[in-house]
Amino acid sequence: MNDLLTDRLAIADLAARYCRAIDRRDLAVLRELYAPGGVDHHTGFDGTIEEYISWLGTVLPLLDGTLHVIGNHLAEIHGDVAVAETYALAHHWGAPDDDPARNFTSLVRYVDRLERIDGVWRIVERWAVRERALSDVGRAVPGAVAGPAGTHGADDPLTRLLAEVRTAGQVHG
Amino acid sequence: MNDLLTDRLAIADLAARYCRAIDRRDLAVLRELYAPGGVDHHTGFDGTIEEYISWLGTVLPLLDGTLHVIGNHLAEIHGDVAVAETYALAHHWGAPDDDPARNFTSLVRYVDRLERIDGVWRIVERWAVRERALSDVGRAVPGAVAGPAGTHGADDPLTRLLAEVRTAGQVHG
Amino acid sequence: MNDLLTDRLAIADLAARYCRAIDRRDLAVLRELYAPGGVDHHTGFDGTIEEYISWLGTVLPLLDGTLHVIGNHLAEIHGDVAVAETYALAHHWGAPDDDPARNFTSLVRYVDRLERIDGVWRIVERWAVRERALSDVGRAVPGAVAGPAGTHGADDPLTRLLAEVRTAGQVHG
Repeated sequence: MNDLLTDRLAIADLAARYCRAIDRRDLAVLRELYAPGGVDHHTGFDGTIEEYISWLGTVLPLLDGTLHVIGNHLAEIHGDVAVAETYALAHHWGAPDDDPARNFTSLVRYVDRLERIDGVWRIVERWAVRERALSDVGRAVPGAVAGPAGTHGADDPLTRLLAEVRTAGQVHG
Repeated sequence: MNDLLTDRLAIADLAARYCRAIDRRDLAVLRELYAPGGVDHHTGFDGTIEEYISWLGTVLPLLDGTLHVIGNHLAEIHGDVAVAETYALAHHWGAPDDDPARNFTSLVRYVDRLERIDGVWRIVERWAVRERALSDVGRAVPGAVAGPAGTHGADDPLTRLLAEVRTAGQVHG
Repeated sequence: MNDLLTDRLAIADLAARYCRAIDRRDLAVLRELYAPGGVDHHTGFDGTIEEYISWLGTVLPLLDGTLHVIGNHLAEIHGDVAVAETYALAHHWGAPDDDPARNFTSLVRYVDRLERIDGVWRIVERWAVRERALSDVGRAVPGAVAGPAGTHGADDPLTRLLAEVRTAGQVHG
């Protein structure tokens, strides 16, 4: 199971799990994605994963929500070390809705140094290269969010569905 | 061919085929992506796949076009059941171009319960969790769409190219 | 290594490498992604890969940056020929910042005819179907780009990290 395709899928999944952890505000999952002592360089932040989690604990509650949409993903693997690049459109929203520091889309390239530790790929160092930030002020469509709601708790449709299926069956992926 | 990587690719392809079916308005393909009796929960719609197709038949013609751009995709497989989450930026446009109900980008998480039926992964229940909707009114760049044109018919470049290649060769993917 | 999963990954990587080559302005890499005599149909351009590279050499310097974010990717393989469709949100920015011809997001479907030549998948003909272009004029958030910087040279975090890792180890992916 240590072949190239399996490694590539594991690294791609890691990039997506990062986004899910931030967007669902599951910081315990986030910690597991970094190596012990892992480092993150972000707009407005520079430090270890432990410090990053503390910082997120202060800034995420200022927002109503985030959606870190990732696209392009390339990884180059050298034994137990890898370099990955993942493009992202990171959407942020929050009150007051006329504040462009809380209502914007960030265009980012995540540049990661990864290591395989005990068989699991983890982030050793990440540069979140922000290429541009675009204001979304004035763009919210009134009344448009009316279907199934996303939450940061156990009642989110994904969280609920995963709990249901994990109880019923046996995981193989 | 029933291993994890093959299943993951099949489920990821299913998410992309959904978008292609909507954007090219190929509702016959869309039906095949759901299990018989499959259910969809959407902003403005709740019902079976048959009802969903009827509903789409009334709302899609109100728009000039859609582009459902998907990114993050994670799937967890438990035997013949799976849960997938797929992020999307769903772009909509149509006349009049100052109507934010027809010109907007929707930030969505598709949360799917899937089942493998006769060897094919299908959607049993989907929650299209709309996180946010952003107006695109006033953003169209005049004269900017001037290259190869997309259509909803047999003359779309993709449709044409697929027909050409399928006639010439033998499919293996 | 010629099985379906390996081919699909190679074709998906090709789509991402195209974006990286444009965004990092590495036109030597770009040339390698097309077959000799490969053809590109783009908004504002129609011609061979050699002509495309010349054209890019005149238009890219007019911009401060681009980020071609790709999402949905499907490929259908028929022996040594394939058809791929890749959705993209192509972000462009440049001075003056009130010019919508330099500050816009293009919604594109890349429709590609690919061939496997000496074991490597290459673009034989590409239609960049632009579905829509949305102005980003007035959206730049002042002071928001303050973290790790992206560049078009050897000091870009990705370029630096790849050089470092390639020197240290042996590639297997």
